[in-house]
Amino acid sequence: MAALSTSYILGVDLGGTNIVVGAMPSDGRSMHAVRTEPTHAEDGADGVTSRIVRMVEATIAQTIAETGATRADFAGIGIGAPGPLDRQTGVVLITPNLGWTDYPLRDRIADAVGLPAALDNDANCATLGEWWIGAARGAQHAIGLTIGTGIGGGLILNGALYHGASGIAGEIGHTSIDANGRRCKCGNYGCLEAYASGPAIAERAREALDGGENSLLPSLVDGDLDRITAHTVYDAAERGDQLALGVVRATAGFLGTGIANLLNIFNPEVVVIAGGVTQAGDALFEPLRAEVRRRAFKPAVAVCRIVPGELPGTAGVAGAVATFVSQAGL
Amino acid sequence: MAALSTSYILGVDLGGTNIVVGAMPSDGRSMHAVRTEPTHAEDGADGVTSRIVRMVEATIAQTIAETGATRADFAGIGIGAPGPLDRQTGVVLITPNLGWTDYPLRDRIADAVGLPAALDNDANCATLGEWWIGAARGAQHAIGLTIGTGIGGGLILNGALYHGASGIAGEIGHTSIDANGRRCKCGNYGCLEAYASGPAIAERAREALDGGENSLLPSLVDGDLDRITAHTVYDAAERGDQLALGVVRATAGFLGTGIANLLNIFNPEVVVIAGGVTQAGDALFEPLRAEVRRRAFKPAVAVCRIVPGELPGTAGVAGAVATFVSQAGL
Repeated sequence: MAALSTSYILGVDLGGTNIVVGAMPSDGRSMHAVRTEPTHAEDGADGVTSRIVRMVEATIAQTIAETGATRADFAGIGIGAPGPLDRQTGVVLITPNLGWTDYPLRDRIADAVGLPAALDNDANCATLGEWWIGAARGAQHAIGLTIGTGIGGGLILNGALYHGASGIAGEIGHTSIDANGRRCKCGNYGCLEAYASGPAIAERAREALDGGENSLLPSLVDGDLDRITAHTVYDAAERGDQLALGVVRATAGFLGTGIANLLNIFNPEVVVIAGGVTQAGDALFEPLRAEVRRRAFKPAVAVCRIVPGELPGTAGVAGAVATFVSQAGL
Repeated sequence: MAALSTSYILGVDLGGTNIVVGAMPSDGRSMHAVRTEPTHAEDGADGVTSRIVRMVEATIAQTIAETGATRADFAGIGIGAPGPLDRQTGVVLITPNLGWTDYPLRDRIADAVGLPAALDNDANCATLGEWWIGAARGAQHAIGLTIGTGIGGGLILNGALYHGASGIAGEIGHTSIDANGRRCKCGNYGCLEAYASGPAIAERAREALDGGENSLLPSLVDGDLDRITAHTVYDAAERGDQLALGVVRATAGFLGTGIANLLNIFNPEVVVIAGGVTQAGDALFEPLRAEVRRRAFKPAVAVCRIVPGELPGTAGVAGAVATFVSQAGL
């Protein structure tokens, strides 16, 4: 008998801007042949799917070359995609970022590659990845927030992803921390996303500049305030710019309020914050933790770490692999 | 061999004001010998425990008389008590309402009655009771809110009570819906409890009266505004009093904001609201449901009922019994 060979799973992280693909063994101990390409949503669902399939094939070929695996060692494909989607049927229902409706993404990829596939939403995959091999490793109860263009959330409860009654649980970005606050794109008022997403951070910086406060920020964007992003704000904050530091502290206050709510509701062991916002580092995390301490129940604070993600750029791929592993019962 | 006899479990619901005790068969199909007595917290932990034990013995005797059961048919005691508490050791850690610290309530009752016992907090028990035989029956994912002097919460996720990392999950009353809002007794700002608990409802009515608005309310309390309670407000609202109706509508707005957050986070099948606030009936529930529809994600709204509890006064007893059933694996 031949020695038992390692089984590999492909992970696909489909975002509005980029697609990331990689391969991992089913025990998650390594990641191979990671590649990133622009999504080019304008190519439509079939065009994007073709690009994903080409990337998957390239990852398979490179993994074979690097590890000595054979094509038969690849067991399946995990896919993380913007939601809402139907995990059971593998259909992406609506993606405002991509413009798709009722697209059978899972089966299109599975058929083209000739491997079974599993689908979950991108925020769940990112949380699952951090739980499987990242910052939430070993926790029974963990909450993941991915802060970028929006704020996505994922919940690990009793050692498994929690999906809710119809698969849309975890929309932490759309919890209101101010019943009469800023209007959110979702129609609600005062959502965390309306204050602490990347675009909301940039918008609050522009508002502060409108107030006439002095700042480095205009010089960082050649005077074109529309070019200010959250990243510009972190840059300025790192250089000691008071206006930018104020925006980062306010962001910590908003996130701290929302995360304190999550501590009182879930009593988790860890909250993992991923995405561009973590570039702000301690300037964000220290006041954020202080805000949570100020607001949440002490016994909940005592058992909970609030930490940046450990897998920037690849949490989604790892989580997509873990989704396949978990759905296939590997 | 004798026919298999029914096994009965005692349920104890210990509150700051009253103790309720009853007995149920392990399948939950009926409730026997329910009795209520004032807690008399001033008697201290041992005094209150003696009263509970006497009530349990009286319930056993009456259940035997009514059903023909024998003492050997009683399998154990479930106890719901104000938290925080340690379910594993059966110790009540701190109860501001009762003034107890580190009191081994479970074992004191178990030893005195001579039956095994199980302990959980009162809000969890109330939710579990509504899920076992009440308004949340059959749901995989249900959220319970008990609104009285405070706002307690319980979470049924994937068909079981969710306790979190250190047993304090479910503190829904202490989630902020206004980061800069009213100071809450817990130290946080803008907690649901600071707006929608019974005392908060009465307080908001007094504030509206201070504004000089016309109302029946003063006449209902002989001019002594300190005697206004949430119940007085519901009374006045039922008689068409505009000020009181405004207070009830505002309450619906606050609760609707908090419950919309829960829908986006948990995607539950049902939210059960219990406690005195349900006396306001449709005057509360209709605007509350409208507020949730206005704020929460449509797919989450579509699958979720928001309903009053079906077990006023006895949800805690039923849940205490269910706690024993579940911990004993009956």
